[in-house]
Amino acid sequence: MNETIHDIPALLADRFKTLRYDEEAQAVVVLDRRKYPFATEYVALRTVEEVARAIEDMVVQGGPPLAYVAGLGLALAARNLTGNTDSRAAQLEQAAQRLLATRPTADDLNHVVPATLRVALDALRSGEDAFAAALAYVNGQIQRGNDVSRACGEHAARLLRDGDRILTHCIAGAALCWMLWTAKQNGKHVELVGCETRPYFQGARLTAASARELGIPFTLITDGMAAHLMSIGRLDKFICAADRITLDGHITNKVGTLAHAIAAHHFGKPFYVLGYDGPDPQTETGAHIPIEERNPEEVFYARGEEGTVRTAIHGINGYYPAFDVTPPHLISAIITDRGIFAPHAIREYFAAT
Amino acid sequence: MNETIHDIPALLADRFKTLRYDEEAQAVVVLDRRKYPFATEYVALRTVEEVARAIEDMVVQGGPPLAYVAGLGLALAARNLTGNTDSRAAQLEQAAQRLLATRPTADDLNHVVPATLRVALDALRSGEDAFAAALAYVNGQIQRGNDVSRACGEHAARLLRDGDRILTHCIAGAALCWMLWTAKQNGKHVELVGCETRPYFQGARLTAASARELGIPFTLITDGMAAHLMSIGRLDKFICAADRITLDGHITNKVGTLAHAIAAHHFGKPFYVLGYDGPDPQTETGAHIPIEERNPEEVFYARGEEGTVRTAIHGINGYYPAFDVTPPHLISAIITDRGIFAPHAIREYFAAT
Repeated sequence: MNETIHDIPALLADRFKTLRYDEEAQAVVVLDRRKYPFATEYVALRTVEEVARAIEDMVVQGGPPLAYVAGLGLALAARNLTGNTDSRAAQLEQAAQRLLATRPTADDLNHVVPATLRVALDALRSGEDAFAAALAYVNGQIQRGNDVSRACGEHAARLLRDGDRILTHCIAGAALCWMLWTAKQNGKHVELVGCETRPYFQGARLTAASARELGIPFTLITDGMAAHLMSIGRLDKFICAADRITLDGHITNKVGTLAHAIAAHHFGKPFYVLGYDGPDPQTETGAHIPIEERNPEEVFYARGEEGTVRTAIHGINGYYPAFDVTPPHLISAIITDRGIFAPHAIREYFAAT
Repeated sequence: MNETIHDIPALLADRFKTLRYDEEAQAVVVLDRRKYPFATEYVALRTVEEVARAIEDMVVQGGPPLAYVAGLGLALAARNLTGNTDSRAAQLEQAAQRLLATRPTADDLNHVVPATLRVALDALRSGEDAFAAALAYVNGQIQRGNDVSRACGEHAARLLRDGDRILTHCIAGAALCWMLWTAKQNGKHVELVGCETRPYFQGARLTAASARELGIPFTLITDGMAAHLMSIGRLDKFICAADRITLDGHITNKVGTLAHAIAAHHFGKPFYVLGYDGPDPQTETGAHIPIEERNPEEVFYARGEEGTVRTAIHGINGYYPAFDVTPPHLISAIITDRGIFAPHAIREYFAAT
C-alpha cells in the first residue's frame, strides 16, 4: 500500500492514483469525483486558478484529498515563479491565499497549504528548488495521510462485532475502507448502509463503489431513512468521518450527520467518528468552525454534472449548508491514528503516541 | 371552495380538478402527481386494474386523495357489472379487494373503499343504480375531506406566530395549505422550509408549488439538513401531515418524518401533526401500522418518470420503506378538524365535536 488513495478502497490502489503531480503534463492530475464511478475521468490542472476552481467545484472532495490537491497546486505555482526572490515569495504567498480561500470548513487545507508554503519559501531563500521541495513535502504528506487512515481504520475495526450493520454518511474515506478491510481480514462480517447524500450522491457513488470493491454488502437508503432503520432495529452503529474536530470534542461533517447522531443517541446506538489525525489545535469549539454555504442552485438539481435534471420548481429559494456540527455528548468515541478517545477528552490525542 | 382540491392550494381550485369521475370519458381522471408541476398531465383510468396500478405507481399520492381515487375506481366497477345480483356483488367485492391491496399504510383507503362497497351493494340489492350511488357517496367524501382539511388548517393557524419559519416534509396536503392561507389572512407572515423528500421530490415539486401559489416564501433543503437548521436557530416549528394516527397517539408519515421529530424534540422545537379527521379507530398503536416497502430500485434514480437519471451505481442493494412511525412523546400536538389534541389523549377526538 504505497499509493495515494484516500477515499477509494485500498484494493484499487494498484490500478489508479486519484491525485498526483504529473511530470510529463506539468499539471496536477485529479480523478473527477463528481463523475466517478459512472465515468473514470481525470482532470489536468495547469494553473493555481484551475486547481482552486477544481476544489471549489467538487472535482476533488473530502478534507485530506482536497488539501493535498491544494498542496500540489502550490508546488505547481513554485514551478512557475518569475522575478527576484521577493517577487517570487510574494507570488507563492498569493497562490497560497487563493488556495486557502477555496473551502472553509475542513481543517486539513489550513495545515497542508501553510506548511507547503513554508517549505517552498525556505527553499527559495536558501537558493534551492522550491518546486522540488514543495512537491516532495506534499507527496510525503499524502503518504503520511494514508498511514494515518490505516492506523485509524485498524483501531476502529476493534469496535466492530461480527454481523454489525453500520450506517455511514457521505464519502467514507480511506479510514472507513481500512476499517472494513481490517474487520474482514479478522473474520468479522459486517454490512454497510449508506445514505445517498444529496445533492452530490457521494454515498450512492463513491462509498457504494468502495464497499463493492471491498466485497462488503452495501444497502443504499435516502438521507431521511436512517432514524427509521434504527427504530426497527436494522442498524447497529453509525460511523462516519469528520472534516474537522475541535479541541472540546465537537466534530463537523457533511450536512446530515447531525440528524443521524441525534437519532443514534435517541435509539442508544453508538456513533463513532473516524477522526484521522485528531483535533485541530487551532479550533477550540464547534461555534468556531466556519460552515461553508454553497450555491443554493445545487439543491435544485440531481446529477447536475452529467445530463442535468432539474428536480425543483422555479421561483423558490434554496439553502445549502454543506456541513453541520455535532456536539461531543452525541458522540460515543473519536477514533484516530493514535487510538480511541472519549470525545470530551480528545485533547489527550496530543499526549498520545 | 367547492372543488376537489386536496394537496394543491385552494387558490388553484378554480382552475383544475386533481381527481374526478369524467362522465364523457367514462373514466377516473387524475392529475399525474409524479410530473406536476413540471408538467400538468391527466391520466384517464378506465378499469379497476388501471386505477389500482395508478395508485401503486404514485400517479396519485397522499392518503385521502388516493383513497378517493380508489373510491371512484369502485364506482367505475359498479358501472360495468354483468350477470345476476350475486355475480355483480362478487364483482364489486373483488374490485374492492384489488383496490384495498394497492397501498397498506394510510388508513383513508381502509375507510373509503369498504364504505363505498357497502353503498354500492345496498343499491344493487335494492334494485337501484349502484354506480350512481357509489359515485355520489365518493363525491360526498371528497367534499367532506375538503371541509375537514379546512377546519384542521384553521385550528392549526392559531398555533402560528408572526415570523415563524416552519419545516415541513413531503406533500403538505390541503390542511397545510389552509393553515398557511388562514395565517396569512390573519396577518401572520410565515415562511415554509421544505425538505425535497427523496426519492420522489414531493417537497421540491408539490409543496413548493403550493407555497408559491399561496405567496408563502419557500426555501428548499435536502432531507438531511433540517437538524442543522434547528441547531443554528433557523427553524421555529416542524409541521406535517400524517398518513395514519393510532389510538395511542403514534403517527405515520413519509419516511424522514421520524428523524425530524427526534431532532425537533432534541432542540426543543414544537412538532405539530395535521391530523385531518383524527385517529384510525382500528389501529391501537404504532406497531400495528403496516409500513409499505416499495421497490428498492426507486432509490437508485432521480426523476425516474421523466428523463430517467441513475444516481446510484449498480451491484448494490437498496431499501425503500416509504413511511416511518413517530411515537407520541415526540409530538407536541395533533391538530384535527375537531381541534387541537395532546397526542396521548387523541382518543378524546371521538368525544369532541
